[in-house]
Amino acid sequence: MVELDGRRRVIIENLSPAVDNGRFAAKRVAGDVVVAEADIFADGHDVISAVLYWRHQSESDWREMRMRPLGNDRWSAEFPVESLGFYRFTIEAWIDHFLTWHRDLRKRVDAGAGDLDVQLRIGLQMMHAAAGRAHARDRKKLQAFMATLESDEPVEDKIDDMWSEDLLALMFRNSERKFATKLAGEMPVEVDRRKSGYSTWYEMFPRSAGQGGHGTFRDVERELPRLARMGFDVLYLPPIHPIGATFRKGPNNKPGNAASDAGSPWAIGSAQGGHSAVHPQLGTIDDFRRLVKTASGHGVEIALDIAFQASPDHPLVREHPDWFRKRPDGKIQYAENPPKKYEDIYPFDFESEDWQSLWAGMRDVFGFWIDQGVRIFRVDNPHTKPLPFWQWIIAELKKEHPDLIFLAEAFTRPKIMGWLGKAGFSQSYTYFAWRNTAWELREYFEHLTRPPVSDYLRPNAWPNTPDILTEYLQYGGEPAFTIRFVLAATLSSNYGIYGPAFERHVHQAREPGSEEYLDSEKYEVKRWEPSDDDMSDFIAAVNRIRRDNPALQQNATLRFHETDNDSILCYSKSSGDNIVLCVATVDPHNTQSGWVDLDLEALDLDANHAFQVHDLLSGARHSWRGGRNFVQLNPHVVPAHIFRIRRRVRTERDFEYYL
Amino acid sequence: MVELDGRRRVIIENLSPAVDNGRFAAKRVAGDVVVAEADIFADGHDVISAVLYWRHQSESDWREMRMRPLGNDRWSAEFPVESLGFYRFTIEAWIDHFLTWHRDLRKRVDAGAGDLDVQLRIGLQMMHAAAGRAHARDRKKLQAFMATLESDEPVEDKIDDMWSEDLLALMFRNSERKFATKLAGEMPVEVDRRKSGYSTWYEMFPRSAGQGGHGTFRDVERELPRLARMGFDVLYLPPIHPIGATFRKGPNNKPGNAASDAGSPWAIGSAQGGHSAVHPQLGTIDDFRRLVKTASGHGVEIALDIAFQASPDHPLVREHPDWFRKRPDGKIQYAENPPKKYEDIYPFDFESEDWQSLWAGMRDVFGFWIDQGVRIFRVDNPHTKPLPFWQWIIAELKKEHPDLIFLAEAFTRPKIMGWLGKAGFSQSYTYFAWRNTAWELREYFEHLTRPPVSDYLRPNAWPNTPDILTEYLQYGGEPAFTIRFVLAATLSSNYGIYGPAFERHVHQAREPGSEEYLDSEKYEVKRWEPSDDDMSDFIAAVNRIRRDNPALQQNATLRFHETDNDSILCYSKSSGDNIVLCVATVDPHNTQSGWVDLDLEALDLDANHAFQVHDLLSGARHSWRGGRNFVQLNPHVVPAHIFRIRRRVRTERDFEYYL
Repeated sequence: MVELDGRRRVIIENLSPAVDNGRFAAKRVAGDVVVAEADIFADGHDVISAVLYWRHQSESDWREMRMRPLGNDRWSAEFPVESLGFYRFTIEAWIDHFLTWHRDLRKRVDAGAGDLDVQLRIGLQMMHAAAGRAHARDRKKLQAFMATLESDEPVEDKIDDMWSEDLLALMFRNSERKFATKLAGEMPVEVDRRKSGYSTWYEMFPRSAGQGGHGTFRDVERELPRLARMGFDVLYLPPIHPIGATFRKGPNNKPGNAASDAGSPWAIGSAQGGHSAVHPQLGTIDDFRRLVKTASGHGVEIALDIAFQASPDHPLVREHPDWFRKRPDGKIQYAENPPKKYEDIYPFDFESEDWQSLWAGMRDVFGFWIDQGVRIFRVDNPHTKPLPFWQWIIAELKKEHPDLIFLAEAFTRPKIMGWLGKAGFSQSYTYFAWRNTAWELREYFEHLTRPPVSDYLRPNAWPNTPDILTEYLQYGGEPAFTIRFVLAATLSSNYGIYGPAFERHVHQAREPGSEEYLDSEKYEVKRWEPSDDDMSDFIAAVNRIRRDNPALQQNATLRFHETDNDSILCYSKSSGDNIVLCVATVDPHNTQSGWVDLDLEALDLDANHAFQVHDLLSGARHSWRGGRNFVQLNPHVVPAHIFRIRRRVRTERDFEYYL
Repeated sequence: MVELDGRRRVIIENLSPAVDNGRFAAKRVAGDVVVAEADIFADGHDVISAVLYWRHQSESDWREMRMRPLGNDRWSAEFPVESLGFYRFTIEAWIDHFLTWHRDLRKRVDAGAGDLDVQLRIGLQMMHAAAGRAHARDRKKLQAFMATLESDEPVEDKIDDMWSEDLLALMFRNSERKFATKLAGEMPVEVDRRKSGYSTWYEMFPRSAGQGGHGTFRDVERELPRLARMGFDVLYLPPIHPIGATFRKGPNNKPGNAASDAGSPWAIGSAQGGHSAVHPQLGTIDDFRRLVKTASGHGVEIALDIAFQASPDHPLVREHPDWFRKRPDGKIQYAENPPKKYEDIYPFDFESEDWQSLWAGMRDVFGFWIDQGVRIFRVDNPHTKPLPFWQWIIAELKKEHPDLIFLAEAFTRPKIMGWLGKAGFSQSYTYFAWRNTAWELREYFEHLTRPPVSDYLRPNAWPNTPDILTEYLQYGGEPAFTIRFVLAATLSSNYGIYGPAFERHVHQAREPGSEEYLDSEKYEVKRWEPSDDDMSDFIAAVNRIRRDNPALQQNATLRFHETDNDSILCYSKSSGDNIVLCVATVDPHNTQSGWVDLDLEALDLDANHAFQVHDLLSGARHSWRGGRNFVQLNPHVVPAHIFRIRRRVRTERDFEYYL
């Protein structure tokens, strides 16, 4: 009549973390503690017991952890994740008749109720049953309790025995789970290495690293000490492959000349090779391997740009014509956004009959660079390739190399950006560059750093890129650069800058209304003369603060605090006892002052005790008491306070002799 | 290598309505239009086409409706639901290469681009393919377009042809769906009759309907004209079954005497029968059937109370001892909440080995009363029986009788109440009785009337019940009754009162701090002398307004508007052109006045045009302009305005001769 067992009375629902109901993995980094929660309830007033099961993909046995009720039928348990790769968790819960009986026995005794003999006999029945299920050791211990209950001792003594913690532990271990409800699904959690969650990126064009002429990997090596000193731990290089000659671009994206112009590194492929080759003027593949190794010695990882597109001269155009779309006139379809044409770029045709070999070919491109020691990839325009392709290729590659990091360069609509995160990208570029008011920043980062979004998308905040020189930077003067830098580095545990343009405050656009750099490095080789007039020291200081303060190495605890000045943004992050409070102006022109109103409860600060705020940028220390405090920021001096908060300031009461 | 077809590029997610991802049905009533939405997107910039499929459970073929984009990758389509029972819907979406080509052709032409010959050939290829898929009629029409393209006509003329709406319709009908993404699941929608969503309940004890002595069903019949005049359409009777003698309750829940006390109707079952029998003093089963019929003649449906529990004298205690739990001393376990004992009540043991026969027995109880013509059941304490039991029994019963309505009397924790809605209960009692401030009411009703909650839980608001005489009613005087009544009747399309206690303003509790009525009808027979001093006329007026205004017959459009007085609540509901605006005081003692600030946009009102507000209670009409308006409410006169808003007030400009 009824297919289910109608005696499974417990309901489990509304799990977290669970991205799209477990369809995608929730993202965590090694060392995190996963807090798993669920709504667990049943009819009536019986006591429920619930356990969390979890295991790493490499383990065959589930580990078990008892869950605790948080109130309002929400339950929680935590498990640490140390290994890279996938963990799964699920939940089992049941009506615990023994605990119900135990709770009611307490109530009866407290109320002086009679009838306790019968109650003890009910308890005894359950102990008998539990002993029957128990291993020898537990059985023996249970039998001792049972023997007392069956003896002639006074009821009071028997009841005293029932309050034993040992008994509760024994009965829980051997609880009757016959009618337990087990969650049908298992919720996946993917654990990446810590750098997925905390990284400091520097982008530079290797061809501009030369000291005259075309830069090389050797030239880049010479930059490493400077980058390490500034505190960067990822050096991202735009494509390093041979550049096509056909329709080669000249300066400022004008039609160029293959003989004299360097062209765009994103026009990938020439007679000298494609995605697995190195542009000869940069050096050899051995030079590249050496760069990877030298960088590693400086604590810097090389990140490569993966742009799946081909110049008309790419070897694949001949080797795999079936990977490109043909027009009725027999020509290969170039990229276009009508009426704009990009004749120097052929997109791959992902609807090709031969899509499986195309997918495999792309996987092998990654594979080649992984073999050269690269573990971080910045993927160009992933939103113009099929979303299921990314889901497949990232999973494929991470099977062998769970330490890979993929940054999605998808400046596109929010749902597609989100889906790329769900599909496996470790980090995502964001709209940060265009969020300039305090209100916009607060709204956006609250969205990014809280579930559900924070479970699948890790923001990487960039104040500039070779494609993005915002109006704010164009017209805000040098303070605009320090402001945007501090915001990126403290709001987001992952951030990056495109340099040396950034630290040199390069701010001239190609033309009014454009976000393109004038004389952009995308189309020509540049030479960056040595200079002392840049913000390297400020960058180094902020990155040192990031390194010293675990609070800034994650986003989950980001909280905004009220201010009475729309130009001042106030926010905190904490990690255990490490609490960092940032107060930043978003106005690059004028001094701004006002009152901040700290949410002391969120910071776990006592309203009646003074606490110390230590400005990690200026070194100044202040003693604050209560939430309301005055701040003043002159962007031409320094646009932000980065306070470390110490919860407790010593007073005379701390001295022993005071008492 | 890859199991999926990597060329299915479209992603569909985040459907609505979808209760727990489609695990439960979304609730609607006959005549509703279901607005289905989903996030639909793909890589790149190609144009997507999407269709919604839906069908009623009685239909084997899906109907199809094209979806339209709402912006930000959200898509929508609507379908009407007229039949009772289950509908299902799902979605299919694909990259529409023809529409992409068509959009780009428009851009090329607008930009004066060349190369149009090749473009037309690409379009022609797609038309050929579509013609190959098309039925004869469409094929013929497509061939006409193709013939033009293949002719020697000038390119301009060919392009003109491409803008034909006919062509777009033909190409959509025969679109290439080979790589379409079809949603894996089908989302269920359960359609109930309109009364599930709009009903007006009156609860009374039939035994108190007498004019001296124990009331009968015949006495209840005499009440029907009064109830119909007041505008009630459901008459809910507490249990009408034989009452147990063992441990029978006396007045005020004191121990009673089976010989002289009437007992509690919830102590169900005696030698005279159980859940399928009628208490002899109320009449016979034929009398009951007659009552059902007479009521129907007055537009009133009889709702029965189903309380699955037994008095110790219930025939089932002997017939099915296995349906009850035995204690070790051989006695049957009575209900208790230690240390409280309810020895007059035996709960059923839903963990019985014989649970399947128990479930079937309970189903047959419903079945019996359905056979007597009852279609509405108020279920007593459903949260103390297993939740899966309700899911099963309601589905079983509604298979045959989709017009059944079940009201869940579960005053328990929110998640259990919610789950009972998901499991199939048509309506649910709420916490309304204890939400007394304007702020509490607003927060609670915003929670109840918006998705996700509104998709699975239909509130039924009761200002009082035989178990609930709130402090607000005890101490608020007569205005407390009118206030709570107006709020229930206008905030919630389903509401009920327990009378005549309510309309007679009965407000004396058994003792201070208790919500029990003094001398409650639950434990004794009462006689209600005829009285003119009650609020029947007011009730009738409000119920007439509900009947005349479709806006008040649903909750989905409930919107709150700001006021500057914490004691004044302002809210609107609309249904097409029918807009009702309520302004109510929650203070039963003092006159309150203040400014309301209408959200004109939500009401679709023009800030620059006067609109008429017509107080349906007082008959007064005012002309308002703009959102800010002054109101004053004296609870001793009338505690609320129920305005009908007419969007447009005629002015001299409406006369033809003005122009």
